[in-house]
Amino acid sequence: MSITYTERYGEVGASLSFDITEVLFSKRSPFQRVEVVQTAHFGKLLVIDGFVMLTERDEFVYHEMMSHVPLFVHPEPKRVLVIGGGDGGTVRECLRHSRIEHIDLVDIDELVSEACLEHIPAVAEGLKSPRVTCRYEDGVAFVEECREQYDIILVDSTDPISVGEGLFTESFYRNCFNLLGEKGILVAQSESPAWQSSVVKRINQKLKKIFPLVHFYQAFIPTYPSGFWTFCMASKGPHPLNDFREARYRKANLSFRYYNEELHRGAFALPTYVKELLNEI
Amino acid sequence: MSITYTERYGEVGASLSFDITEVLFSKRSPFQRVEVVQTAHFGKLLVIDGFVMLTERDEFVYHEMMSHVPLFVHPEPKRVLVIGGGDGGTVRECLRHSRIEHIDLVDIDELVSEACLEHIPAVAEGLKSPRVTCRYEDGVAFVEECREQYDIILVDSTDPISVGEGLFTESFYRNCFNLLGEKGILVAQSESPAWQSSVVKRINQKLKKIFPLVHFYQAFIPTYPSGFWTFCMASKGPHPLNDFREARYRKANLSFRYYNEELHRGAFALPTYVKELLNEI
Repeated sequence: MSITYTERYGEVGASLSFDITEVLFSKRSPFQRVEVVQTAHFGKLLVIDGFVMLTERDEFVYHEMMSHVPLFVHPEPKRVLVIGGGDGGTVRECLRHSRIEHIDLVDIDELVSEACLEHIPAVAEGLKSPRVTCRYEDGVAFVEECREQYDIILVDSTDPISVGEGLFTESFYRNCFNLLGEKGILVAQSESPAWQSSVVKRINQKLKKIFPLVHFYQAFIPTYPSGFWTFCMASKGPHPLNDFREARYRKANLSFRYYNEELHRGAFALPTYVKELLNEI
Repeated sequence: MSITYTERYGEVGASLSFDITEVLFSKRSPFQRVEVVQTAHFGKLLVIDGFVMLTERDEFVYHEMMSHVPLFVHPEPKRVLVIGGGDGGTVRECLRHSRIEHIDLVDIDELVSEACLEHIPAVAEGLKSPRVTCRYEDGVAFVEECREQYDIILVDSTDPISVGEGLFTESFYRNCFNLLGEKGILVAQSESPAWQSSVVKRINQKLKKIFPLVHFYQAFIPTYPSGFWTFCMASKGPHPLNDFREARYRKANLSFRYYNEELHRGAFALPTYVKELLNEI
């Protein structure tokens, strides 16, 4: 007998299946169904409403690229706001920078953190750090009401449907802009230009109305739709390449599994069809 | 009723399925089964022995990256040898360079070209060019016996199993080396570092024994295993970045859907785990 977990990619009439051995966790919160599944070759999978959020095998790609790219561009990052990201992977990567004094994590659903703390602790452990405050509330309302200031905001959301939808709106981005300090940077996961091009296009259009600098960068994430994933960096001032802090990167001497100095630059070199999508040529 | 075509990725216990509407072509040659399938969202699929060789939707990525990267590095490319590539996509891209005088295509299986000329002519049409000679014979024997000289050899092979296996051996690479002129460059498709890392490692080790310069570069090909695909450039002299012919690239003024100047450079910026695999750090 073979048991598979299958994610359906409706936009392109395709699906990706993984051989699995066991369902370790499956609970429904008021917001969504959260599952942890043991696979044969990808370690554990975190699945929300039928979409793969992370696999133990390749989660480092997403979490390193979401965090370190802006952290090595901002001139003096001290305070980070993570919206979504209840699995803890993004927080874990931010904590590796000793200059980071405080991280607020705002995820609507505590069940995500519970599942990961229990079953995928290597990803979630950072949530327990004294430098981190976890708030389980609506990120959309949080950025509207918050009066704190942040150097970096990381939007580590699910897809722009159901629970995640509010994290892709112009008013959400505008509230984020207002929470950011003078040299502030927002990075949002921004889906696949290969299979979800209209989403990428809309994120770009909305952010360009609000931020002076908007640049997309890319990473290979085999277990996300198409494997071709992007992040959008919207900045109040620092430029992703011209202001890349090489000296700080070298001095930090952190070991990464995906990110590195040349890759920081290379990740912004987009295929022609993606540049066209973003109206950059 | 829904009908799907499914490719199984045995190494990682996963599979990718496409909704299909029709099987247009399915014949067995002495070497392999060749199929053309109509999908709902990817145009036509060319399938050999159950592995996707190309889809109309994203074939441009593979064919542009295999061809233009070495063509804009070699100082004076005139003669190209394509081993495999019976679908014609690589030949089509090479023909766009007016300085290319002649292309020899050597594919073991004429049935591949027949299927593509009939069902995917936009990919295959270059095969009929007066600048192209198609030879349907064993590429391994061809490079052993051939006394011609080439500027560029492109190994556009299937996977290193059954028919394609001989195109991944040290003796094959050595024969290619001997057919190349003084500034000659070989590019071989070199599988996925995410899901087929041992193959990538072996190609690297073998080519480094023979060529003074060996560099891998990468592209997003969503319909290949993991979507993370590499090409290996083995060169007798020209360096992929230091000898990139920017002026010629600009003067050529060709329009590409994937390839571009910044991407040429960015494609060589590899993730840390891939650099480790290649012993580059």
